[in-house]
Amino acid sequence: MTSADLSALLNREQAQAELFDLLRIPSVSADPTRGADMARAAEFLRAKLAALGFAARVDATAGHPVVYAEHLQAPGKPTVLIYGHYDVQPEAPLEEWVTPPFEPTVRDGRIYARGSTDDKGQAYAHVKGAELLLSQGELPVNVKFLLEGEEEIGSPNLEAYLREHAAELKADVILISDGSRFAPDVPTITYGVRGLSYVEIHVQGANRDLHSGSYGGAAPNPINALCEIIARLKDDQGRVTIPGFYDGIDELTADERQMWASLPHSDEAFAASIGVPALPGEAGYSTLERLWGRPTLDVNGIWGGYQGEGSKTVIAAKAGAKVSMRLVPGQDPERITGLIADYVPKIAPAGVSAKVVPHHGGRPFKFDLNSPFNKAANRALKRVYGREAVFARTGGSIPIVAAFNDILQAPVLFVDLGLNEDAPHSPNESFAVQDYFNGILTSAYLLQELGQ
Amino acid sequence: MTSADLSALLNREQAQAELFDLLRIPSVSADPTRGADMARAAEFLRAKLAALGFAARVDATAGHPVVYAEHLQAPGKPTVLIYGHYDVQPEAPLEEWVTPPFEPTVRDGRIYARGSTDDKGQAYAHVKGAELLLSQGELPVNVKFLLEGEEEIGSPNLEAYLREHAAELKADVILISDGSRFAPDVPTITYGVRGLSYVEIHVQGANRDLHSGSYGGAAPNPINALCEIIARLKDDQGRVTIPGFYDGIDELTADERQMWASLPHSDEAFAASIGVPALPGEAGYSTLERLWGRPTLDVNGIWGGYQGEGSKTVIAAKAGAKVSMRLVPGQDPERITGLIADYVPKIAPAGVSAKVVPHHGGRPFKFDLNSPFNKAANRALKRVYGREAVFARTGGSIPIVAAFNDILQAPVLFVDLGLNEDAPHSPNESFAVQDYFNGILTSAYLLQELGQ
Repeated sequence: MTSADLSALLNREQAQAELFDLLRIPSVSADPTRGADMARAAEFLRAKLAALGFAARVDATAGHPVVYAEHLQAPGKPTVLIYGHYDVQPEAPLEEWVTPPFEPTVRDGRIYARGSTDDKGQAYAHVKGAELLLSQGELPVNVKFLLEGEEEIGSPNLEAYLREHAAELKADVILISDGSRFAPDVPTITYGVRGLSYVEIHVQGANRDLHSGSYGGAAPNPINALCEIIARLKDDQGRVTIPGFYDGIDELTADERQMWASLPHSDEAFAASIGVPALPGEAGYSTLERLWGRPTLDVNGIWGGYQGEGSKTVIAAKAGAKVSMRLVPGQDPERITGLIADYVPKIAPAGVSAKVVPHHGGRPFKFDLNSPFNKAANRALKRVYGREAVFARTGGSIPIVAAFNDILQAPVLFVDLGLNEDAPHSPNESFAVQDYFNGILTSAYLLQELGQ
Repeated sequence: MTSADLSALLNREQAQAELFDLLRIPSVSADPTRGADMARAAEFLRAKLAALGFAARVDATAGHPVVYAEHLQAPGKPTVLIYGHYDVQPEAPLEEWVTPPFEPTVRDGRIYARGSTDDKGQAYAHVKGAELLLSQGELPVNVKFLLEGEEEIGSPNLEAYLREHAAELKADVILISDGSRFAPDVPTITYGVRGLSYVEIHVQGANRDLHSGSYGGAAPNPINALCEIIARLKDDQGRVTIPGFYDGIDELTADERQMWASLPHSDEAFAASIGVPALPGEAGYSTLERLWGRPTLDVNGIWGGYQGEGSKTVIAAKAGAKVSMRLVPGQDPERITGLIADYVPKIAPAGVSAKVVPHHGGRPFKFDLNSPFNKAANRALKRVYGREAVFARTGGSIPIVAAFNDILQAPVLFVDLGLNEDAPHSPNESFAVQDYFNGILTSAYLLQELGQ
């Protein structure tokens, strides 16, 4: 079966109509009034997969249900577990939507609807990809679908589900399409995610708020002290000063740096896209290297003293900040959390005490660029787009990767089908119609290639 | 008339009973339901002063009324304007009061009541001081009382009142007792107040909040940048780095430094009183010098990003801080505000823009230590306490000083009668019975000394 054949066989009208039916279900996992819609979306997917010949069921969890389906008719061939989610972000602010979020509408070649790209459109492309192959015979690999309903609220019950069904979910590779390609017309394979250490810094000065007239100049000021601590956490080269922070990092290879340098990226365009005059960061690394392959330290929130209108002449008793560090392979979140917890009290200015309260962490991951899975994905994408895929990483952290890694002990293959301009999580979320159809073909070809 | 005479003549029971009557009136200027109580307190004072022979009246203002009274029977002698206020702070939190705030109660030699020290007790001591002298003949100077009802809400109508009645209020010196002596048994004359420049710093990064995973490492972080800016505003010696900040400062004299060094002050006790392990500050100056004679820069509030429970991985678009600088004689608030407004944008890290938004300012003041008024006050205090007065300054800023200086063009003489331990503005505010009686005698002697 050649690409031309499959592409010609795809009933695009039907594929779009089915996705629209799914998009019309307002499956907002964060909204407690939409439990029935969640169940309806799960049943929609179960019924569809069952109709394709999958053994499909809806499994209850402590939260929203999981759709599980398997089609295991390829003895001796690899098993692919396709993960996706049928829940969507809340639609607010509703008034900013040009057309209603749960009435999918095509404008300028894009399907506008909540969940169109994140992740109903991308997940359903795999359902339709399997269907396309099944319409011509058997699936070339064993396929399992795991479609959860709580991704947008942090997958609170997924890990327990994975543990409970670990044997059943066993796979050679876990395929996820829930993100963005590097650019339009650029097929992308994501082979790494950053980890995370998220902490709070608490600084205590006097035992009560003080009057800045009566005490200013002699009493320690915990806000000034907190600012000094934060300023000291990075040097003038943008490097994190925490001793040991960079120890053991899996440095970027010359090949990776060359590969990323050749990508169609413009610092000017990137800066303009977020409205800033410059892109500060760690010296010696390009913007993509800083985003994908280097650790960071960002303050995500800060507070202390008087924040209201007008003025209040107070020296606050305490101040605090939320600080997150994105981590790269070679950095262990717990070790990094320990390092900053040791370091902050040491750099606290005289007169105050400072401590670090850990929040949570997530491990960084990097998968083998040259694995047979990545190579198969590259071949499949080339058949759709007519060009080699870009091997990128993502700056974000995807906590479920650790769960898949630890519990299912299989590598993850990220084949993202969307684009940043789809505006996931925002009003007027969309998915290009062509990206949806390309996604279906990518899925079908990828299962073929994985079967080779 | 010797001190012993006056002291013997003072009817202490009567003096206390009258003050209690005044303290029972809940004249909380911030409470809009207590307008009648405000009027009652004003009338109480007017009637008392009228009974002493003063030409006394209650003048309406746009807010709470002013009590004005004058006794001008000392031709050729100086005119003393005694300023005080009959309004008090709100009594909340009520549950922390041991006895009700408007039922004055004596325990362990202290009168517990809202307003006991701030400022009914201190102001009424002057009324009783004048009465004590009048009971023996004429007043030795011309005396004017200006008792306002809005001090605790920022004296919003006082400046207009001063302008309207400038000719009538003309005086050679303005006497104020509305603060704390340096220590128990230490008579204190306060001859200087710090000024103030209060600004906000606003830092803008990207044009919207960004995801710290997708953008962290490349996008500018306005909170980190704000912290760097704030850290850069002081050097490692605790000196403010704003160019020109210290220019023109009226440096402390060797005499002043020696005088303050001899005061009964302990850094250890001061640090312990606010529960801090050390007292950081500008190198080369003692704690009292830092508090009274050196300028400061304190952050009074800071905000940015996510401040709620848990974690949010956001790079905020903006961050801000409220910053106040206490100023000393020789520093002009408008000039200092201009300097920081020029400087902050220059030290902003790459990628963000920073600007300063001025709030308000107040001028520093220092009065001549060796003026005849200060000398007279010292003699009067010596007659009461048997020791020389301490010449102190205060770290706070007293905005009405500028109004008195500009409109009435007379120096201010601060003869504080209270103590920090009186806990003005706090629950269980009190005034030592002995300090009240000493205040009455101080007032009488001071009028005598000023008449010499």
